[in-house]
Amino acid sequence: MLHKIVKLTVMDVRFPTSSEQHGSDAMHTDPDYSAAYVVIETECGLKGFGLTFTLGKGTEIVVCAVEALAKLVVGMSWQEIVSDFRGFYRLLTSESQLRWLGPEKGVIHLASAAVLNAVWDLWARAEGKPLWKLLVDMDPKQVVSCIDFRYITDALTEEEALDILLKAREGRQQREDQMLREGYPAYTTSCAWLGYSDELLTQLCTDALQKGWTKFKVKVGADLEDDRRRCRLLREIIGQSNTLMIDANQRWDVAEAIRWVSSLAEFNPLWIEEPTCPDDILGHAAISKALAPLGIGVASGEQCQNRVMFKQFLQASALQFVQIDSCRLGSINENLAVLLMAHKFPGMCEYVDHLHEHFASPVVIRNGHYMPPKDLGYSCEMLASSVQAHRYPEGDVWKANTSK
Amino acid sequence: MLHKIVKLTVMDVRFPTSSEQHGSDAMHTDPDYSAAYVVIETECGLKGFGLTFTLGKGTEIVVCAVEALAKLVVGMSWQEIVSDFRGFYRLLTSESQLRWLGPEKGVIHLASAAVLNAVWDLWARAEGKPLWKLLVDMDPKQVVSCIDFRYITDALTEEEALDILLKAREGRQQREDQMLREGYPAYTTSCAWLGYSDELLTQLCTDALQKGWTKFKVKVGADLEDDRRRCRLLREIIGQSNTLMIDANQRWDVAEAIRWVSSLAEFNPLWIEEPTCPDDILGHAAISKALAPLGIGVASGEQCQNRVMFKQFLQASALQFVQIDSCRLGSINENLAVLLMAHKFPGMCEYVDHLHEHFASPVVIRNGHYMPPKDLGYSCEMLASSVQAHRYPEGDVWKANTSK
Repeated sequence: MLHKIVKLTVMDVRFPTSSEQHGSDAMHTDPDYSAAYVVIETECGLKGFGLTFTLGKGTEIVVCAVEALAKLVVGMSWQEIVSDFRGFYRLLTSESQLRWLGPEKGVIHLASAAVLNAVWDLWARAEGKPLWKLLVDMDPKQVVSCIDFRYITDALTEEEALDILLKAREGRQQREDQMLREGYPAYTTSCAWLGYSDELLTQLCTDALQKGWTKFKVKVGADLEDDRRRCRLLREIIGQSNTLMIDANQRWDVAEAIRWVSSLAEFNPLWIEEPTCPDDILGHAAISKALAPLGIGVASGEQCQNRVMFKQFLQASALQFVQIDSCRLGSINENLAVLLMAHKFPGMCEYVDHLHEHFASPVVIRNGHYMPPKDLGYSCEMLASSVQAHRYPEGDVWKANTSK
Repeated sequence: MLHKIVKLTVMDVRFPTSSEQHGSDAMHTDPDYSAAYVVIETECGLKGFGLTFTLGKGTEIVVCAVEALAKLVVGMSWQEIVSDFRGFYRLLTSESQLRWLGPEKGVIHLASAAVLNAVWDLWARAEGKPLWKLLVDMDPKQVVSCIDFRYITDALTEEEALDILLKAREGRQQREDQMLREGYPAYTTSCAWLGYSDELLTQLCTDALQKGWTKFKVKVGADLEDDRRRCRLLREIIGQSNTLMIDANQRWDVAEAIRWVSSLAEFNPLWIEEPTCPDDILGHAAISKALAPLGIGVASGEQCQNRVMFKQFLQASALQFVQIDSCRLGSINENLAVLLMAHKFPGMCEYVDHLHEHFASPVVIRNGHYMPPKDLGYSCEMLASSVQAHRYPEGDVWKANTSK
């Protein structure tokens, strides 16, 4: 039976994280972690939940964009969608009038991501699986059929992608068993936001070490002497055997990035993340080249708009660590394209320890590793009570402060 | 006296151009030429008009984004803004929560462009000049002070920009006189939209030749045999001495672009415009390299999101024709940055012969050249009656067809 999607609801949900400087960095000094939160519903009452991440102001713009896309989704069954998922992806991202607003970038692509994430959630729930398991069990041909190869065939053709997946079938069961046993390696960002005091940083790092974390990221880029002090402090706490990464959140020009990071080299960071504009492929390539002799890699991708940009970052050897985000890229569909182009790179996930209490299936971390969720779907359903309280501007949390 | 901006109004204005296939191309098959149209007003009643261009659907999203930016503009005087225009540009484009939605790309950057365009219009009107004259008369130091050099200093520093402008003072008066006499060279796109029949194309080209046009652009990319027929037809009408350009509007992957354009080489096009994804700098570089032996250049920029992308297109020799759009880039401020990076490239403007009747100061074309406008400001004020009739969805033009 076809399960027609009869309803799409989108909500502006904001959490006032800026009040305690959670998430603060050199360019985003006062983020209120927020989301355009999408719920799709089939006529038989099955629901899919998806979101795209925002920093507070402007979430209403993404909500408006989701509403413009809703017309393309409502009325289709999830089976129709996933039987030609590439076609549906193209429909959303290349609608002939809407594409002028991107194409495949900025607000309209964030909105596409939220909608597509909800479709993936629905699909996995309908199949009775967590999303990762849906993907692991999927026939390679079907995996490839979800990907829009437009504009990337000079780096990866459909045939090459299929070939990678077929070869990867070997050892799949062992990898799945290992993942269920040990989880997926993660690093923590939540000890050293830029706005945190040295005391708080010390306390949080010490706690994290005790919980088994071995990889720590520090925000840098506002003031060099502050950065040196904070990196030194972190190294003292975590020692030389654990891993330190630094993140400038796009603060510098190319030459400045090379100078600044070179003067932090003594703290032996694994990578410098977002040293400059996320659009600057050639700039990242120049920085990568300059920092390679110091043993420091370059990471980026959190604000990388689409698979075409990632393709070039890889072609130009501009990154050594590829960071993808299925809230900014066009969901799993585009993530798969990037993962396949980057399949030789090692994997590691960022962990941010805020707001888990608002989710129906909060992440489970063990020993600095993400444990694969057991609940059905994408695990991005929020608790109804949390949504209610944090809806902007009418939720209780915001009613008191409508000036925001 | 400081003229405080006390009001910003933004309207969703759409023209049903798709009904006659005006503006149609391989990727945008049914555009309704539209705008998010901004009017700012000072307390003494002076007005500034600005817009960003859209294709119909989704204009309401840009309107929503302009409303989010309005808070940053209303309350400031135009003198405060232009006395630190770089700072104001940064305020709009890097607001710490809103920047997540871009940064400097897509909907939020289109909205910034509309607002900044209105500020430039207001400034020129307040100075009693057409905008081009305001710029021509401006002290080079002030020109440079309007530009945000963040992320481009590896290609152009403030000092280098100033140097270019100071050197260009020589011969300025002669160039201005020549411009007033002869205008600025243009080419026409309006004879050969993809949806036009051969008969209409023949008639429009013949008329345009008689009016003095010498440069003609043809839309290509949907079907190779059609393209060959249309290019042959156009060449027969315009002869060998006039100029032909072709435009694929992002239709191809890299290898396909090279193949397709090579098979149109016999028609001797000056350039192929937007052969592939506007984000694909390295792809454009590969296409440029392959087509150079055929004497065909590569043009792009209409959907190039910002100065950082243009910087790389220039660094990689990926373009031979740089096409900027002050409705997509951050207005004159960012256009100046790109023009200065590309100052060695020859200039030519696109001309599209639709909708002029709706503007208070319609463009004047003479002999295939744009004549410098004499009216004050930016010449993008629309007639009140046109705005009224075309507001979406409440205007008379749309009331009849609310299903769009």
